[in-house]
Amino acid sequence: MSTLSIDLNCDMGESFGAYRIGQDQALMPYITSANIACGFHGGDPAVMRQTVALALQHGVALGAHPGLPDLQGFGRRPLQISAREAYELVLYQTGALSAFARAAGSSLRHVKPHGALYNMAAAAPSLARAIAEAVYHFDPQLILFGLAGSALVKAGQQRGLATAQEVFADRTYQQNGALTPRNQTGALIEDADVAVGQVLRMLREGRVQSVQGSDVALQADTVCLHGDGPHALDFARQLHARLQQEGVRLQPFTSVQA
Amino acid sequence: MSTLSIDLNCDMGESFGAYRIGQDQALMPYITSANIACGFHGGDPAVMRQTVALALQHGVALGAHPGLPDLQGFGRRPLQISAREAYELVLYQTGALSAFARAAGSSLRHVKPHGALYNMAAAAPSLARAIAEAVYHFDPQLILFGLAGSALVKAGQQRGLATAQEVFADRTYQQNGALTPRNQTGALIEDADVAVGQVLRMLREGRVQSVQGSDVALQADTVCLHGDGPHALDFARQLHARLQQEGVRLQPFTSVQA
Amino acid sequence: MSTLSIDLNCDMGESFGAYRIGQDQALMPYITSANIACGFHGGDPAVMRQTVALALQHGVALGAHPGLPDLQGFGRRPLQISAREAYELVLYQTGALSAFARAAGSSLRHVKPHGALYNMAAAAPSLARAIAEAVYHFDPQLILFGLAGSALVKAGQQRGLATAQEVFADRTYQQNGALTPRNQTGALIEDADVAVGQVLRMLREGRVQSVQGSDVALQADTVCLHGDGPHALDFARQLHARLQQEGVRLQPFTSVQA
Amino acid sequence: MSTLSIDLNCDMGESFGAYRIGQDQALMPYITSANIACGFHGGDPAVMRQTVALALQHGVALGAHPGLPDLQGFGRRPLQISAREAYELVLYQTGALSAFARAAGSSLRHVKPHGALYNMAAAAPSLARAIAEAVYHFDPQLILFGLAGSALVKAGQQRGLATAQEVFADRTYQQNGALTPRNQTGALIEDADVAVGQVLRMLREGRVQSVQGSDVALQADTVCLHGDGPHALDFARQLHARLQQEGVRLQPFTSVQA
Repeated sequence: MSTLSIDLNCDMGESFGAYRIGQDQALMPYITSANIACGFHGGDPAVMRQTVALALQHGVALGAHPGLPDLQGFGRRPLQISAREAYELVLYQTGALSAFARAAGSSLRHVKPHGALYNMAAAAPSLARAIAEAVYHFDPQLILFGLAGSALVKAGQQRGLATAQEVFADRTYQQNGALTPRNQTGALIEDADVAVGQVLRMLREGRVQSVQGSDVALQADTVCLHGDGPHALDFARQLHARLQQEGVRLQPFTSVQA
Repeated sequence: MSTLSIDLNCDMGESFGAYRIGQDQALMPYITSANIACGFHGGDPAVMRQTVALALQHGVALGAHPGLPDLQGFGRRPLQISAREAYELVLYQTGALSAFARAAGSSLRHVKPHGALYNMAAAAPSLARAIAEAVYHFDPQLILFGLAGSALVKAGQQRGLATAQEVFADRTYQQNGALTPRNQTGALIEDADVAVGQVLRMLREGRVQSVQGSDVALQADTVCLHGDGPHALDFARQLHARLQQEGVRLQPFTSVQA
Repeated sequence: MSTLSIDLNCDMGESFGAYRIGQDQALMPYITSANIACGFHGGDPAVMRQTVALALQHGVALGAHPGLPDLQGFGRRPLQISAREAYELVLYQTGALSAFARAAGSSLRHVKPHGALYNMAAAAPSLARAIAEAVYHFDPQLILFGLAGSALVKAGQQRGLATAQEVFADRTYQQNGALTPRNQTGALIEDADVAVGQVLRMLREGRVQSVQGSDVALQADTVCLHGDGPHALDFARQLHARLQQEGVRLQPFTSVQA
Repeated sequence: MSTLSIDLNCDMGESFGAYRIGQDQALMPYITSANIACGFHGGDPAVMRQTVALALQHGVALGAHPGLPDLQGFGRRPLQISAREAYELVLYQTGALSAFARAAGSSLRHVKPHGALYNMAAAAPSLARAIAEAVYHFDPQLILFGLAGSALVKAGQQRGLATAQEVFADRTYQQNGALTPRNQTGALIEDADVAVGQVLRMLREGRVQSVQGSDVALQADTVCLHGDGPHALDFARQLHARLQQEGVRLQPFTSVQA
């Protein structure tokens, strides 16, 4: 029987100027892929340089985390942009982050849109195609991260990109495969054991139980860890330890799994 | 006797959103290198994409034109930044523009700092070194454009970069090689014949007559054309035509001249 | 028979830094109310100061023209904001512009939201109420400008504000009173005579013929003149002259009409 | 013998969007004047609304704290602006904050420039005059806060404004009355007792001992408390308690002292 493996990704480098957010230093040891903010919703050139260096110190794979141009809203407020604008802002931000990877003797491995852009691209095929196109035009070897089963993953596959289907350990799912919206009760899984169990079942069976009770088929290539919130670090530590105990190999996603 | 050659560069892509500035379309046929704004002092991702495409249509070499983060001041107001901040903002902006060049199947050929950053780097060796370092770290094949004889050119040379010494056709020089400040009378050369004559003498003799009367030695690798002002287009056309008539080959600067 | 009167308003002061947009100087003589950008979608502190001075020179009433925080999109891209955020950004921008009016010995007379914020407030009662609340809290004497018959006008009236119902001379109407969307054919009225006729009928009969043929009842308190486009100035001149010929008094809207 | 009184001021409301900075809630009980950021170097419309409400809950006087337009640099990097630009940005920001005070049924009491703008205005009479002019034009009743003995205080007095001379409890002074630059050893006073002693002597004798040993004459109208740093809250608490123990009345600065 082959060894199961999974990627643990986390949003990183979202501080800005004098403003600190997240706990990058503490979380970095527990993840395998870093989604690094590129200056639109968070991050600035100094933070990008420092975050690339920190990720490389820990052997964590580098990814661009492009967002909407809305620092005040942290990229979480939907902004109505055209597909062309989505293409352009992903290209711009990926290029900017890539420069810091190059200067550090490394290179980007993946791209994961942030916040409202991530959600919009999960649902709108035209935006999803534009984003996949930008990633492909920048570097066809890059891996596109998107919500498992989403329009973004489909667009990436159609464009010929390797894609990583993203799942959540601490969020519940609807029977249609969508995440339960955060403002609904039962959206979050607070119990680390339940969360680990959900991830393990996704890995072993390709399934998750929806809040309605029925199972949903799901491919789990990478698990999103949240960097904010009081329990983020504790949760990351537990998930990391428990997956290792279960014999799951933790490593950056690769399109050709062993 | 070998043929003289010169590069004609111009700042391009400085429009932003709904705001148009410059006359890129009209000027592009008369230049050989485009310094393309990268979103900090001017330009945005849409303008960058369009400007890269326009330059490539005309066979014009692509360059990054990074500026200070001051859109309201158009990057012309000196901002006191550290050498590290200069390094970071040049790296960020060069990477961002580079992505549009890559997506268009091309690549950057040079970097020229903009406005106050250009002036600060001409005079401050620590900023100059930081900028040269950023360019070198991004791509050691890039050519660094700087004011002829400036600290920026020296820093580029010391770092091992090819450098292009920039001269001005329509500005007068002081006996120490500096440009006459714009707010002084006699700073600008309005007569196109005089301007062409100044460039030809720089090319043929490596000299320019200062306003004080004495000659200044100067290496002329690239001539800066201004894209703004009512006579910019007319001036570019005349300079282009007259240099061709004089047998000067107009081409992007190359570090190994024929 | 009482004299008819109407207000002609126009968006002004939307230049930013080195970027010029619109033709404020030329248009100011033909309008009676200026909607002055406040730095979010356009405008900056220097432009605001100059535009207030220009309006006062021409005896034009001053209004705040708050927009979404999206300079690149010129405030035209819908951004999903909460009612509280709408309240806050209208209050902030109205206060900022008000300072320039005070410094010039004058004061604001009206507030008209810009672009996507205007459209969102026309349709969403919660946003409309928040905007009306901000205006009322800043100064209950201010007049709120909104699309005739819209949620914004209703919210203003419910809050106890004087409201000016805005109509368009050069746009056609649907039978439900909405403007024909710009991307549909027949949305724009190019013929100045037709446009003047539409305004006169709105004033005299309180009606406009919809594109479907049926009449729509409409209150016309202020007519929006567009400041952009090649024919804007010419159109403003003609409308201004023709309304005067027809004996319509042109003056800033006042809630207690003679 | 008359009771001594002093104002304790602190920079407040410098959070931005998702980013938290400072400890406004905890510090507010120990101060008498709040300098509230206005969105340029820190703060946003939501934070401004909340900070005004918080200050009013504690009976703390409201002041505008305008800064340079440099969020990334937190307004601490000198930017070369003209006197006119200084005038415009102070007017804009003061007006914006004032709107939140009005909406809360209150009004501003003072203006204190932030960071690099504060330092530039302390030394450059032309900037100082422009700032004083902006404050006066907005409201001649406002009190201008500036470094004790600085060009800004002089400009305010010449303009006819009430001015509050600001002193520091935890910074040492040079014999010319300037603060010891932060990057020099001995710039900061870590011992709360020494700091309190320095303030009491300023109040009682109008003098402070310079690091060179000689006394410097100084008028102390308001003491700046720092809101950042690990010991800020503790220091504020101690200073507040000790001054009360010494019989000093803590109250917002008023130009006509009892």
